[in-house]
Amino acid sequence: MPRYKLTLEYDGTPFYGWQWQDHGPSVQGSLQRAVEALNGAPVIVQGAGRTDSGVHALGQVAHVDLDKDLRCDRVRDALNHHLRPDPIAVLEAEKVTEEFHARFSATKRHYLYRLIDRRAPLTLDKGQIWRVPQQLDSDAMHAAAQMLVGSHDFSTFRDAQCQAESPVKTLDEIRVSRIGEEVQVTCSARSFLHRQVRSFVGSLVEVGVGKWSVRDFKAALDAADRKRCGPVAPSDGLYLVAVDYPD
Amino acid sequence: MPRYKLTLEYDGTPFYGWQWQDHGPSVQGSLQRAVEALNGAPVIVQGAGRTDSGVHALGQVAHVDLDKDLRCDRVRDALNHHLRPDPIAVLEAEKVTEEFHARFSATKRHYLYRLIDRRAPLTLDKGQIWRVPQQLDSDAMHAAAQMLVGSHDFSTFRDAQCQAESPVKTLDEIRVSRIGEEVQVTCSARSFLHRQVRSFVGSLVEVGVGKWSVRDFKAALDAADRKRCGPVAPSDGLYLVAVDYPD
Repeated sequence: MPRYKLTLEYDGTPFYGWQWQDHGPSVQGSLQRAVEALNGAPVIVQGAGRTDSGVHALGQVAHVDLDKDLRCDRVRDALNHHLRPDPIAVLEAEKVTEEFHARFSATKRHYLYRLIDRRAPLTLDKGQIWRVPQQLDSDAMHAAAQMLVGSHDFSTFRDAQCQAESPVKTLDEIRVSRIGEEVQVTCSARSFLHRQVRSFVGSLVEVGVGKWSVRDFKAALDAADRKRCGPVAPSDGLYLVAVDYPD
Repeated sequence: MPRYKLTLEYDGTPFYGWQWQDHGPSVQGSLQRAVEALNGAPVIVQGAGRTDSGVHALGQVAHVDLDKDLRCDRVRDALNHHLRPDPIAVLEAEKVTEEFHARFSATKRHYLYRLIDRRAPLTLDKGQIWRVPQQLDSDAMHAAAQMLVGSHDFSTFRDAQCQAESPVKTLDEIRVSRIGEEVQVTCSARSFLHRQVRSFVGSLVEVGVGKWSVRDFKAALDAADRKRCGPVAPSDGLYLVAVDYPD
């Protein structure tokens, strides 16, 4: 039963999120059907992160055990064949040992949130960026974001449905930078709470449009109170970029 | 009759190209309907370039004469309202004098062609990049592309349907560069022949995958013979980026 690590890209728009659902399409469900078509028997695909409905991935990681010992490029190409026409691509398939677990072996997860501040609606990037009609002060957003770095009780930025045992997480890094017309938020941590990134990005936008000061943002974090969170950012702009593992 | 210059972004996928058609959707047709809804009377929208079916724009320029004298931001917002749900956005509306003509006043047009060399199918960028499964040598492509700079008889890279009087054009600049996973071709000229960019990009890909040498590419150009053109690149990767006018 060789184990394969899969690096995945997907457009989250048509899916109810990563996790298998009986009432609608999911990334895991599509992948399991594709792997079953290759393997000839049912399989479970384990993912590194349960991305929400509409959230995209540039480098989600999953693992799967196959009954047959196949070449990695054959696994990649066959799965891509069986995944059509779903907007999910296997970028890479690698053989790994049985100790590797996509979710439990992960040491860091990297997310990107894309924003654009303009009046005109989106065309080419519809569903893939959050458009904010007001101008965003990315320097102020970056300054506020630095308040999140380190270990905190993130209750303010945690969805009510979050199943994590503790609201305390450690954010290793977060940057807000203007790249051309876009404002991009990149952040990294070992793990995140449910809707944590969308929650703090929504509140960072309150800073960006001048409604909140950096001090207001810090006070909202320190309050550890969900009611202090700004409007949660939509799923459109969120990307799981990469997942790190020990060498 | 104030004249407005419109800067436009669009996803070309659902359109039969820029130009009005009686048998299907066109960018010009959608715009004319939106302007008519604002103006209350039929209008002609003049564009700088007649982008082909499926070709995108980040900065197409058009002009239109309105019966009413409206504020520029009101024109932009009202047109964007009337354009919904078509993937066309008016990024900017500016008042110009009657001497301004989107097509005839243009002094330079800038195009971008996006390529990606990978085996996995596209997800988020489907319809917006040309995926080539073989690895591309962007340095070789750049070297070949330099053969195009200057004035040439571009018959090799000219569509049979091209209505230009002469096949001689002057290409001011062309660059092929690798930007992350992508290979981007950017080029600028006063004007282009029909399908000129897609024709030479297709032949540059023959160089990129190692089928043609730079010398083969030069010989194809010098032959001034349409039969010497490589496979024409698909519309997916082509973007009209900007149009220049005298100050």
